[in-house]
Amino acid sequence: MRGEGGDRAERVPLATTAGDGRYPCFAAAAAPRPLSIHDPLDRIGRTYAEVDPAKVIGVVHTNEPDGGRAFAAPDEASRRIAEHVAEFFVQEMRSGRIPPEFLPLQSGVGNICNAVLSGLASHKEIPRFKVYTEVLQDAMFDLVASGEASGASSTALTLTDKKLTFLYENFGDFTDRIVLRPQEISNNPGIARQLGVIATNTAIEVDLYGHVNSTHILGTQIVNGLGGSGDFERNAFLAMFMCPSTTKGGRISTIVPMCSHIDHSEHSVQVVVTEQGLADLRGLGPTARARRIIDNCAHPAYRDALHRYLEGAPMGHIRHDLRRCFAMHLNYLEHGAMLPDLNLSALEPQHAVLKT
Amino acid sequence: MRGEGGDRAERVPLATTAGDGRYPCFAAAAAPRPLSIHDPLDRIGRTYAEVDPAKVIGVVHTNEPDGGRAFAAPDEASRRIAEHVAEFFVQEMRSGRIPPEFLPLQSGVGNICNAVLSGLASHKEIPRFKVYTEVLQDAMFDLVASGEASGASSTALTLTDKKLTFLYENFGDFTDRIVLRPQEISNNPGIARQLGVIATNTAIEVDLYGHVNSTHILGTQIVNGLGGSGDFERNAFLAMFMCPSTTKGGRISTIVPMCSHIDHSEHSVQVVVTEQGLADLRGLGPTARARRIIDNCAHPAYRDALHRYLEGAPMGHIRHDLRRCFAMHLNYLEHGAMLPDLNLSALEPQHAVLKT
Repeated sequence: MRGEGGDRAERVPLATTAGDGRYPCFAAAAAPRPLSIHDPLDRIGRTYAEVDPAKVIGVVHTNEPDGGRAFAAPDEASRRIAEHVAEFFVQEMRSGRIPPEFLPLQSGVGNICNAVLSGLASHKEIPRFKVYTEVLQDAMFDLVASGEASGASSTALTLTDKKLTFLYENFGDFTDRIVLRPQEISNNPGIARQLGVIATNTAIEVDLYGHVNSTHILGTQIVNGLGGSGDFERNAFLAMFMCPSTTKGGRISTIVPMCSHIDHSEHSVQVVVTEQGLADLRGLGPTARARRIIDNCAHPAYRDALHRYLEGAPMGHIRHDLRRCFAMHLNYLEHGAMLPDLNLSALEPQHAVLKT
Repeated sequence: MRGEGGDRAERVPLATTAGDGRYPCFAAAAAPRPLSIHDPLDRIGRTYAEVDPAKVIGVVHTNEPDGGRAFAAPDEASRRIAEHVAEFFVQEMRSGRIPPEFLPLQSGVGNICNAVLSGLASHKEIPRFKVYTEVLQDAMFDLVASGEASGASSTALTLTDKKLTFLYENFGDFTDRIVLRPQEISNNPGIARQLGVIATNTAIEVDLYGHVNSTHILGTQIVNGLGGSGDFERNAFLAMFMCPSTTKGGRISTIVPMCSHIDHSEHSVQVVVTEQGLADLRGLGPTARARRIIDNCAHPAYRDALHRYLEGAPMGHIRHDLRRCFAMHLNYLEHGAMLPDLNLSALEPQHAVLKT
């Protein structure tokens, strides 16, 4: 991750796409030091990579599309999460903690992040923003094309075939507003800190103290790699994690006593958001964090159980009961529901469990 | 953490020490952007802080010493850990992964880190190095005074009264070789990455997959704050965590199936070291990591139990059994030993449990 690239390699395979000299790489820039990126769209380095022709072992021409997955239209949970996030940012701008010109957004991959990006872009009180992230999805090109977002920097694209065709047909519209960079630059901790990036990523589960599981269901089955979220959550101006409060028709609560796998620790997670609400954890001690996460983010059907866990756990700087911290996970493994006695159909309408 | 300092404050209290115009702050530098620190001893900013005199509400003169805690002479476990670390660095230099001039070291606070610093400084095959860290302890001033280390950058000192007196009496010897900076600079993620810092910190416990607990015993009782280790482990060239393999006379294994609290995730922890040996986790999948940590780092008396846990856990990308992952912790809570049947006095001499 620290090398400057092709000049050190002994053998270099080259790949080209589109077959007519157009490349999906807008600015393949080697890394000079220091990294003078003061705006997400600043370009550094060169628009080409130098390679000794003697090292080239082959050239692969391909038109094979990426086959990127189309994301669903935002569902009710995603829309509510986007509303909570937008409302929080508006308050932060009013308080002066986020400047009036806003800050660059880093955005994870998936339906929720897409919905949040779109919700923010269309929000009247949030100015046109730029994105400094790792992977761009379809929605980003729509936002840039419409002018709702003013540009984006990334290292990779994950586009549907339809959007990729659209991009090739409208290439010139994006060359000034999209920058693709080597990953060491797109995920560089110094740039994330210097730009003051706001990191918005999704969680599989969040525990009472703000630890986040982004990768492993029930501590064992991987559903996502970590991607670059670790680079951003630690070094961002603000790190936020989002998920619906329940999954599997309400049989799983994403707010749990202890995460079954931890990718992001309490030390870096500042804001948690579900469709139920937003928990701003900044400046809170462990027990206050736990209560705020339960009251603001957990589904109402799970709040009593979570409060009972917290109040029943032995005292400590952090309250935890190692005998019971995974009881909800074990219930799911044994009974197919984290709270087997919960009557999901009897929930009041305003507390209805959202489909995911 | 992002502010430039006193110019934004409305009221400013000033403190001076030593009473004769000498300040323990060698270079109180505001943060210009970009941060042009390409060597741990590079100085940026100014040697003073500008304050509007109208804002000064008082000047406090104090000679009160810090009363820093003296650290014990390195014990057998610390010495062996330092040997493993030095041997690893020598191999890394031979392989070309660490350059012959070495890289700056970040070093946590405590006996083990002190022992490792001293061990590296006196090692014949490791060149004189510089330190880029957050807190300097007594040992660092000895290493700089003797010329074994060529200098150090930090944001704070934690010195015994004796060493503080020594510093004041020999101030001129250190002004070129010690730089104190604001924390946003000492712990800046961009600088840690740019310098290629090697982060060496201590762990309370390490789990089979390389997650590290640095703060909470049994998941509840805080013994340390996190300090800046999170800034360094995520952004360093190499992140290493060290601890003795057992504590409490062997009744606790620091290598456990699952950490009872996680401060640093598997994604950032590359090397684990105990007095038993060193586990280089780079490039290994989860199960291979687990076996290497058990075989290289766990105390021999605990290896069978840890292997049994691993092999008996349900398959997955990560193998874990949420029913049993804290069994060793619960044994300690209930029986005063993680493996109550273990006969510590019957251990073979070469496997003797180290006092801590």
